[in-house]
Formats: sequence, structure tokens, C-alpha cells
Amino acid sequence: MNVVLFLGIGIVISLAALGYAFYLYRKILSFDAGKGKVVEISSYIKEGAHAFLRAEYKVIFTYIFIATITIFIGFYFGYDHISGLTENSNTNIVVDQTQYSDLFYGLGTALSFLMGSLFSLSAGYVGMKSATNANSRTTTAAQKSGIIKALDVAFKGGSVMGMSVVGFGLLGLFIVLALSFAFGLDPYEAITYSAGYSLGASSIALFGRVGGGIYTKAADVAADLVGKIEAEIPEDDPRNPAVIADNVGDNVGDVAGMGSDLLESYVSSVIGAATIAALIFTAVHRMDGILFVMTVAFSGVLSSIIGSFFVKGKEGKSPFKALKMGTYVSAILFIIFTFIANVLFLDTINSGLYTDPNGIFMNIKNFEFEFAPFFSIIIGLSVGVLIGLVSEYYTADAYRHVKNIAKQSETGHATNIIAGISTGMESTLIPVLILATGIVSSYFIGGLFGVGLAAVGMLSTAGITISVDAYGPIADNAGGIAEMSGLDKGVREITDQLDSVGNTTAAIEKGFAIGSAAMTSIALFSAFIRKANLSAIDIATPKVMAGLIVGAMLAFFFSSMVIKSVGKAANEMIEEVRRQFREMPGILQYKQTPDYAKCVEISTAAALKEMVLPAMLAIITPLAVGFFFGAQVLGGLLAGTLATGIMLAIFMANAGGAWDNAKKLIETGEFGGKGSIAHKASITGDTVGDPFKDTAGPSIDILIKLMTTISLVFAAAFGLGLF
Amino acid sequence: MNVVLFLGIGIVISLAALGYAFYLYRKILSFDAGKGKVVEISSYIKEGAHAFLRAEYKVIFTYIFIATITIFIGFYFGYDHISGLTENSNTNIVVDQTQYSDLFYGLGTALSFLMGSLFSLSAGYVGMKSATNANSRTTTAAQKSGIIKALDVAFKGGSVMGMSVVGFGLLGLFIVLALSFAFGLDPYEAITYSAGYSLGASSIALFGRVGGGIYTKAADVAADLVGKIEAEIPEDDPRNPAVIADNVGDNVGDVAGMGSDLLESYVSSVIGAATIAALIFTAVHRMDGILFVMTVAFSGVLSSIIGSFFVKGKEGKSPFKALKMGTYVSAILFIIFTFIANVLFLDTINSGLYTDPNGIFMNIKNFEFEFAPFFSIIIGLSVGVLIGLVSEYYTADAYRHVKNIAKQSETGHATNIIAGISTGMESTLIPVLILATGIVSSYFIGGLFGVGLAAVGMLSTAGITISVDAYGPIADNAGGIAEMSGLDKGVREITDQLDSVGNTTAAIEKGFAIGSAAMTSIALFSAFIRKANLSAIDIATPKVMAGLIVGAMLAFFFSSMVIKSVGKAANEMIEEVRRQFREMPGILQYKQTPDYAKCVEISTAAALKEMVLPAMLAIITPLAVGFFFGAQVLGGLLAGTLATGIMLAIFMANAGGAWDNAKKLIETGEFGGKGSIAHKASITGDTVGDPFKDTAGPSIDILIKLMTTISLVFAAAFGLGLF
Repeated sequence: MNVVLFLGIGIVISLAALGYAFYLYRKILSFDAGKGKVVEISSYIKEGAHAFLRAEYKVIFTYIFIATITIFIGFYFGYDHISGLTENSNTNIVVDQTQYSDLFYGLGTALSFLMGSLFSLSAGYVGMKSATNANSRTTTAAQKSGIIKALDVAFKGGSVMGMSVVGFGLLGLFIVLALSFAFGLDPYEAITYSAGYSLGASSIALFGRVGGGIYTKAADVAADLVGKIEAEIPEDDPRNPAVIADNVGDNVGDVAGMGSDLLESYVSSVIGAATIAALIFTAVHRMDGILFVMTVAFSGVLSSIIGSFFVKGKEGKSPFKALKMGTYVSAILFIIFTFIANVLFLDTINSGLYTDPNGIFMNIKNFEFEFAPFFSIIIGLSVGVLIGLVSEYYTADAYRHVKNIAKQSETGHATNIIAGISTGMESTLIPVLILATGIVSSYFIGGLFGVGLAAVGMLSTAGITISVDAYGPIADNAGGIAEMSGLDKGVREITDQLDSVGNTTAAIEKGFAIGSAAMTSIALFSAFIRKANLSAIDIATPKVMAGLIVGAMLAFFFSSMVIKSVGKAANEMIEEVRRQFREMPGILQYKQTPDYAKCVEISTAAALKEMVLPAMLAIITPLAVGFFFGAQVLGGLLAGTLATGIMLAIFMANAGGAWDNAKKLIETGEFGGKGSIAHKASITGDTVGDPFKDTAGPSIDILIKLMTTISLVFAAAFGLGLF
Repeated sequence: MNVVLFLGIGIVISLAALGYAFYLYRKILSFDAGKGKVVEISSYIKEGAHAFLRAEYKVIFTYIFIATITIFIGFYFGYDHISGLTENSNTNIVVDQTQYSDLFYGLGTALSFLMGSLFSLSAGYVGMKSATNANSRTTTAAQKSGIIKALDVAFKGGSVMGMSVVGFGLLGLFIVLALSFAFGLDPYEAITYSAGYSLGASSIALFGRVGGGIYTKAADVAADLVGKIEAEIPEDDPRNPAVIADNVGDNVGDVAGMGSDLLESYVSSVIGAATIAALIFTAVHRMDGILFVMTVAFSGVLSSIIGSFFVKGKEGKSPFKALKMGTYVSAILFIIFTFIANVLFLDTINSGLYTDPNGIFMNIKNFEFEFAPFFSIIIGLSVGVLIGLVSEYYTADAYRHVKNIAKQSETGHATNIIAGISTGMESTLIPVLILATGIVSSYFIGGLFGVGLAAVGMLSTAGITISVDAYGPIADNAGGIAEMSGLDKGVREITDQLDSVGNTTAAIEKGFAIGSAAMTSIALFSAFIRKANLSAIDIATPKVMAGLIVGAMLAFFFSSMVIKSVGKAANEMIEEVRRQFREMPGILQYKQTPDYAKCVEISTAAALKEMVLPAMLAIITPLAVGFFFGAQVLGGLLAGTLATGIMLAIFMANAGGAWDNAKKLIETGEFGGKGSIAHKASITGDTVGDPFKDTAGPSIDILIKLMTTISLVFAAAFGLGLF
């Protein structure tokens, strides 16, 4: 294959995605931003979100600076150790023995790390900017032109995010590859550098998710507890001092944080598959193997761009249908493109056909038949969709689980909580069985490369799925602005319609994010084992077993840290809101304007303070375990965090979603309706579920991926460890 | 060593423990049972407990009958398959190739399974009988003679249970071994049969824990919700229709269920270590290796009997000190006995000294030095004590975590729940690090046998620790009887003092139970791998990874089933209590006696109905996975359930304990005291914690052990599986 041609196409498609995002952004700005209260409230939210991201980025930049220097020094001076690997002669696999110039290796990895960090920050920032501009315009569109126009504005707002994520993510990757080839590195070396890029993206994702997640939920919990329960004012009421912080939170957590998260997933899955390609193909076909993965990736971006044109609201039809249409078109296009890619790369794929009868025990089994890569990708795509549907089943009020939680709320707070927790735990069953089937079947037909491709397949249409997901918080914000500006009921009804669709898509998206994190991590994990030159990770060895239980514990401990942080930050906020109600008694009579900025400030400071420790835990633990106890034990640790983390992530996402919708169901008048015992109990459940579903749950996804990515980058350096 | 002599000593000591239990039981009956209301209330509880156990045992007998037949048929007809193993020539280990007569093998395993079941049931039954007789006598002693006599009666009541458990447990094991030797079987065969015994005990333990746990918590939750919150009557108020069922629950769950649970742990740990001994020692030393393990076991029983004489209350001193003294004396005696055993078996141990430099990678590493077995046992003992202390730290109101939960209750139900959940999750950190250190260090000095011995060491003094644990529910019941009989405040104060000690010992015990379950399972897991003739279980293989995540999921799914069952059973009970309050308005004015029997009946029926499904899941899953997907995948599954299950068990036990004590702390007047917002919120936490700490948490311990035991028994039959 012509390397320059393929890299060129990839760069052009990435730039096209970014260009399209820019076009959409200009388009949004051209819409009517409304007037009076609408503009005022919207500007509060915008300022708050900017202030938080500025402050957050300052903290992160310090961290990036330190990390970049550390990586540079580590790889510069540490390289002698890295090259001192022993070849594993039992397996007929490619062993990492390429010789790099020390300075070059250190500089290259540090720079690609830096680029990964900056691109991830940029994607998040652009998404936030677009969302905070689209919210008031969605409100105004709902007021002036009705639901079709409002849907259009909100979806365009989300698409800026979706396209930026895949555009930035892929562009960076292509730049790393192109530069590496320009410097004459071989494909395997090029992929090694790109793991640094992925590490940069992962680190930012963790900070973004944890920081943004703490921010948004601290504000939300405080606004609910003091506003709804103590002061008995409705949601999104302008008298609530925490209401702006709550709306800001949607933008910094659910938009910027989510964007960095999925950029990371997306990049990691591509690099995971490319690393496996580099390891399993012989020298002749290695470059083509990597190009095949890249082609699959840019096909997904192209499919997403085209698919997004098909999101068009129709009078009298649910906006959900329009969003679904875009997703379906993208998926179908992607399947067609992938099939073509499989045909184009048939020679390469044929070279990897399954020949070694012992391969099954040695992790080097390749393809069973020549269209195995294509089918592996389809498996991944299907697993993602199916897990998303199961999440919907467990969290939508049309099904029995949410109804049951609402019913259990009638007997009070405790039974509501018990029902939510047991529903969340139960909801791990089907997704895990689907995931296990996906792993085993993609491995069965495509070997490890099959598993890696399945992960890529799952995330391939990320462009459109992120757009749909980012649409949610915009619709939510639009509703808040309508409420706070005192627009008439009709406007709120339209935004509510848009928002309720957003809740469903968010639930589906969360299942999808977990599934892709799991699949990607397993692919990265396999790549790690190969790069660390391990032939097996034997859990029958007590020290690996010890690593396994410590890894499982990390998932719980990390969750506790994040949840505690939300609690602490929420408490500070609660005190502030109470203080304002106490010292400014005019607020509740609409005679005084609450001090929104103070609440925004508190949330910002608390989130920044609290995000550092959990992030450091995720980064330092795998390094420490790897260097002290060796790659085997680290493998056990990763497997433990992976297995337990997936369960916690599914449990928390679904319990949180189900509690939320049980409350909404009761608010429609069922089981006693607003103000009943059941309603009060359901608010408790919703409040408990907030840090579950929007802070701890999504953070665990990244924890898993980040720990595996770090291990992959440093894999060759661990060896047997010091103990 | 003289086999007959050692077996003889073992049988004599086991019988001594049972004889001592019988003596104590007669002694308890000789105490004053009180009069009037005390006798009446106590007889309600006694009748309820008997009724439940009778009904439960009926269900269980059906199951035992089916299981015994199945095992007989399975091993009778299935043996051809089992003997068709291929020897693994890469490892210089003993491979299971002994030839049994088919009929003999089937009959022997089925009979030892039957004996394990019956002995477990007997221990639970005896414990319950003793506890239901000791409760009213403790009340009367508190009323007539003061705290010292009351402590004495309650502890004697608990000791009947403690001594029965170790007596029955060990006696059965010695009988299986003695019979096997009498029939001329070799030591390895004898141990194979004893795994059937362990399986019998495990199965009963699961039914007992799940059934008893559902019973006790359904009653407790209903009594709290309707009684305390809706009718606003205090705890243990005779007007509450569910109050007798609640007290019955303590006896069937926390006494009978706990007894079967620990009997199972105890027996499994001994069999795990003995199986490893049979596998690692050469033919000449194999018998002595097994005898060494048995000697360690009966030393523990002897130490417990002697230690229990040292529990003597002193005027003005906390009863906690007296209980601790007994435990310390037992531990010190056990250490001395173990050292002597190590000296006696020095020849055998020397034969297992570490010689193979490659052993570390092949799971066949033996002892580093000749006192390695002794030190492995000490490690186990220390790990158990340390984990217990950490549980105390997280659940006692003297420390910051419980105080924090109480403080968070001031802002309402949601913050109380969030604080409890994050505390429970955080509390996994230290126990897991201790456990990991224990595993690695015992393995380092003693190889796999070291890990097995550490598990035995942890449970060695089970006789005294169970006595202390069973004392708790008796003191609790005594308080309830005092309250319901309207005795004067002074009596209740004494029983409260006894009860509060019981809460602390229960928390320590729970940590201990989890630690021992983990350690035992890891030992059994190692034995399983060896028996299945696997050289490694490689998590880098995707199908093993799939097994791992499915295993992790099982722990969550199982928990959800058990928690849901408690919820369902509690709901039926709530309806009934409400009905009684509604239809018999005289109850609240003390003019009508509530229909206690109806509540007992409902709890019984619900618990029996709900316990079957989770128990079946635990039993059938490992068998199905093993037969269909092979021993490798089953190994992954077990590791997943083990790693995630440990976390869930610790999380639930400590969250539940902390919520409970936060409520008690508030009831002492802190943070607003009784009736405050904080108090109401803390009751919610306590109610959520009930099924956590007393049903799901302890059931997971058994889930882990049962799944591993089943896998061990059928290990040789799985092979590569059908897929």
C-alpha cells in the first residue's frame, strides 16, 4: 500500500472533521441568542464554565509540564535498562529489540505525550465553548420556531464536540505516525511513540472526568438538597444560589469531561489495535497491518460526518428518531467502508491467516479466515449497541426496574436505596455476558488482533455518538435557561421533550462508554503482555493473585475517593447556599439576586483540590507495582482493576440512571406524585445516584484505560521487578 | 508417625469439644429461666426459631437427598472420564492417577457429602437451641445477680455453639480419614473423599446463611420501618408485631447460619491445606504431611477449650476484657502447640525443603527453612487479627469514620447513604493490603503449603472466636426480652452493656470471616489448579479473561439476588405489620396482643422461597463452566468471583457496621440525638446496611468458598471442556 497516500487521506479526513466542527460553530453563533434574561443567565453559565476550565487547565498544565519532563528524563536515562530485555525464545513472536537513539526516544515520547494532552484539552474546550453558546440559542429557537429548529440547534452544538473529538484525536495520531516515518523510523517504533500520545490523552481525560465530575455533582447535590428539600423551591429556580453552578457543571462535566474521556477511548482503541498489528505481522506486512487499522479509523470518522447530515427533526415525530437515524446511517456506511478496507488489504490479511496449531495457547493465534478482521469489527459494533440497549432497559421508566424503584419509594428512603442498589448490581449480568461473548468470539475468529479490532469497531462511529451525547446537556441547559428566564410553559415543554431524549441517549452512551473501555482495555492489556515479553500471566502464582486482589481493591478505593470528594465539595456548597438564604432573606421573595458567582467559585476550588489525589493514585500505582514487583504482578493488578472496575462502572451508571428516572416517573404523578413520601424518597435516591453515575462511574472507565495505557508505555522497562 | 495414635488423639479431642458443649448446655438449663413475661416472650422466640429451622431443614433435606444421589451417580458413571487425564510432563508433580473402584468412589464421596451436610446442620441446630435457652436466662441473671453472672450465662450459651462447630467439623473429618485408611486407601485418596465432606458442609452453609440472613433482615427491616418510623414506637417494643420475628432472626441467622458458615470455613481450610500436603509431599512423607495439618487443627480445638475457661467477668471491668482474655490465652497456647507440632514433624518438613530453583514459576516451591510451616501459621493468625482490628476501626463509634457518617446525617438521608457507601468502599484498602502481604509472605517462606497453612492458622482458634461471636445475639435477645417484659431500666442497662460489646466483637468477627474466606479460597484455588493438572491459568488468554469478568459479575449478581430477596420478604412483612396496626387498633394502646406468629410465618415462608435461587446459582455455575469451557476458564471465573467478592464482602460488612453504629452514636445524644433529622437519616442508613452486613456480605464469603470447593471436588473431571 502507498503509505503517503493513506496517511494523506487520514489527515485530510481528520482536518475535514475539524473544519466541519468549525463551520457548525460559526453557524451556531449566527443563530439568535435571545434577549434579556435569556442572555443574562446564559452569560453567567458561560462565564462560570470558562472560569472553571481556565482554573482547571492551570492545574493541569503544571501537571503536564512535570509529566513531560519526567517522561523525557525517564526515557532518556532509563533506556539502557529498557534495551536490556531478554528474548523469549519459546514463542515465535517479534521481540522489542529495536535500537533507538536515547535522546530521540526521550524527546519523541515526551512530545507525543504533550501533543496528546493538548489535543485532548482542545477538544474539551471547543466542546464547552460550543455548548455554552448553543444552550441559549436552543431556548430561543424553542421559543420562536418550535421543536424542529431547537433540535437542530442543540444537535449542531453537540456535533461541534463530536467532530472535534474524532478530528483532534485522529489528527494527532496521524501526525505522530507521519513524523515518525519522515524520520525514518520503522512501523513498530512509530507505534511505540504513539502510545505516548495516548498516554497524554488518557491523563487529561482522568483529570477532566474527575474534576468536571466532582464540580457538576457537588453543585447538583447542593442545589437539590438545600433548594428542593429545605427551601422547597423547584428545580432550576433562579432563587437557588447554586443553580448557575449546577448548569455550569453540565458543561464542564458532561460536555468537556465526556469529550476528553471519549477522545481517549477512541485513540486508545486505535493504538491498541495498531500495536497488536505491529506485533503479530511479520516485517513485510507490518506497515500495511497498521495502515489497515488507520483506514478503519478514518472510515468511521467519514461515516460520522455523513451520518450527521441525516439528523433532521420532523413535525410530530420524536426527536429520538432523528438522532437514531443519524446513528444508523453512520453505522451502515461504516460497515460498507470496513468491508472495502478488508478487500483492499486482503494480501496483508492473508499473510496473517491462522497456521500454528499451538497458537491458541500462546496468544499468537491470527485469523481463521480472510474476512475475520471485518467480522471482528462487526462484533465490536454489535456489542456496543447491545450493551447500550441493556442500559436503556435498566434505566428507562418504560421498563420494570425503574417502576419497581418508584414503587419501593412508597415505603421510604431505605427501600428506595435498597432497590436502586440491587437493580444496579443486577444490571451487570447481561452486559458482562455480551462482553464475554464478544471477546471470545472476536478472539476465536481473529486472534488478539480480532479483539483489538472489535474495540476499534465499537468506537468507530464515535463522531456521531458523541454528538448525540453532547446534545443532552445542551438541551438540559436550554430548559434551565427557559425556567430561570421565566419564559412561558410552552418553551419549557419543548426543551423538556428534547431533554428527556437526552436522558435516554445518555444512558445508552454510558453503557457504550463502559463497554468500549472494557474492550479497549482488554486489547491494550494484550498488547502490554506482548510488549513486556511475558508468555503468560499466571493467576495460580500467589504473587499474581495478590496483585489481582489489590487491583480489585483499587477500583473500590478509587471510587470511594471520588465519591468522598463529591460529598466534601457538596458540603461546602450546602453551607454557602444556606448562608445566602439566611443572610439574604430577600432571595426567596425574588427581592434579592443570589450570589451565583460565589457558588461557582466554591465548586471550582473544591473540584480542583479534590481531583488531584485520585488522579495521582491512578497514575502512580501501576508504575510503582511494575517497577517494584515486575510485569507479571502488574498484569494481575490490571486484570483485577479491569474485572472489578467494569462491574462498579456498570453498577454505578445504571443504579444512578434508574434512580434518576424513578424520580422523574414519580414526578409525572405516579406513586403519589410530587410532594408524596415516595417523591421525597426518590429524591434521596437521585441524590445518591448523582456521584455514582456522573462522577465515580465514568471515572472508573478512565481509571481502567489509563492504568493499562501507562503499563503499555512502560511495559518494556518493568521486567521482573525488584522484589 | 503413628497414624492410629494421631487419628485417635484427634477423635478424642473432637469428642471432648462436643462433650464440653453438652456439659455447658446442661449447665445453662440449670440456670434460672425467669418467670412470667420473660418466660412467655422467650418461648415465643424459641418456638419461632424451631419452626423456622424445621421448615428450613425440610427444604434442605430434599436438596441433600437430590445432591447425594447426583454425586453418587456422577462419580459412579462418570469415573471413566475422570480417569482419562493426560499427565503433564513439564512439571515434576504428583498427577492424579490413582485407580478407584467406581462404585466405591461414588458411594464414598456421596456418603462423605451426606456426613458433611448433616454435621453442619447439627452444629447449627445445637447452637440455636443453646442460644434460645440462654437468652431469657441471661435476662434473669442480669436482673437477679448482675453483669458478671449475665456475662457468664451469655458466654456459656455462645460456647455451646463454638465448641459444637469445631467438634462436629473436626470429628467428621477424622471419621472420613479413619474410614478411608481402614479400607486401605492411600492418603491422597482419603483426602479426595474428604473434599466431599467439605462440599456437604459448604452447601449447607450457603443455604443457612442465605436463608437465615433473609429471614433475620426481612424481620428487622420491617420492624424498623413500620415500628420505629411509621408508628414511632421504640426498638424491641412488644406492641410491634414483627418484634418476635426480629428476635427469632438473630437466632436463625446470626447463630445457626453463622455456625454453619464458620464450620465450613474451618473444614475447608483444613482440607485445602491437607490436599496441598498430599500433592506436594512424595509418597513416603505424604501421610505425615496430612497428619501434620490435622495435628495443627486439633491443637487449635484444644487451645480454644482451655482458653474458654479464662473468660471470667470482673466487677467494674468491661466484659470486652474478659472475652479478649479468652481469645489471647487460646492464641498463645495454639502458638506453643504449633511449634511443638513443627518439631515433631521435622523429618517430614525437611523432606519438603526448597530445592528446585525453577520452582517459583511452577507452583511447586516448598519450604525455605525448616520452621517455615510454623511461621506460615503465625502469619495466618496475624492476618486474621489485623483484619479484625481494621474492621473495628471502620465500624466503631470511637473512630472518625462512624463519627463522619453521623455528622453527614445532619444534612439528610442522601448524605448519610453517600458517606456510608464511600466509607465501606474505602475500608477495602488496608485489609486487602494485609491479605496480599500475608499471601505473598506465606508463599515466600512456605510455598503453596505455606498459604494453605496460613488459612488454617487464621481459623485455628475458631472454637473461641465463634463462642465470642455467638454470645452477641444472645446478649441482644436478652435485652429484647428485658424490654418486652417490662423489667426495670437497670436490667436493660446491663444487657445493653453486654450487647454493645457484642457489636464490636461481631464487627471484628466479620472482618475475620472475610479474611479467612479469602485465604481459604486461595488455598483451595491452588489445590484446584493442581488437581485439575493445569500448569498455569493465563489471564492473557481471552477466554480466561472472559471467565474472569463473568466471575466478577457473579459476585455482583449474587449480591443483587440476595438483597432483592430481603427487600421482597421485608415488603410482605411490612404489609402484614401495617395490616395488624390497622385492623387491631388496640395494639398501640397495649389493649390487644399483636399476632406475632403470623409475622414469624411470613418471614419463614419468604426466606425459604427466596434462598433457593441464589444457592443454585452458586452451585450450578462452576459445574456448568467447568464442563463446557474447561478448567482454565473455570480458573478465571473463580479468580474473578474471588477478587471482586472479597471487595464486596468487606465493603458491605463495614458499610453496614458503620451505619449501624452511626445510628447508635446519634441515639446517645450526639448530632441532635433521638428524633432529630440526623437520627431519621441514620435509621435509613442502618436499614440499608442491614441486608448488606447480615445477608449479602456473609453470603458472598460462602459463595466464594463453595464455588472453589465444588471446583476442587470435580477438578479432575473438567479437562479442556467441550468448547
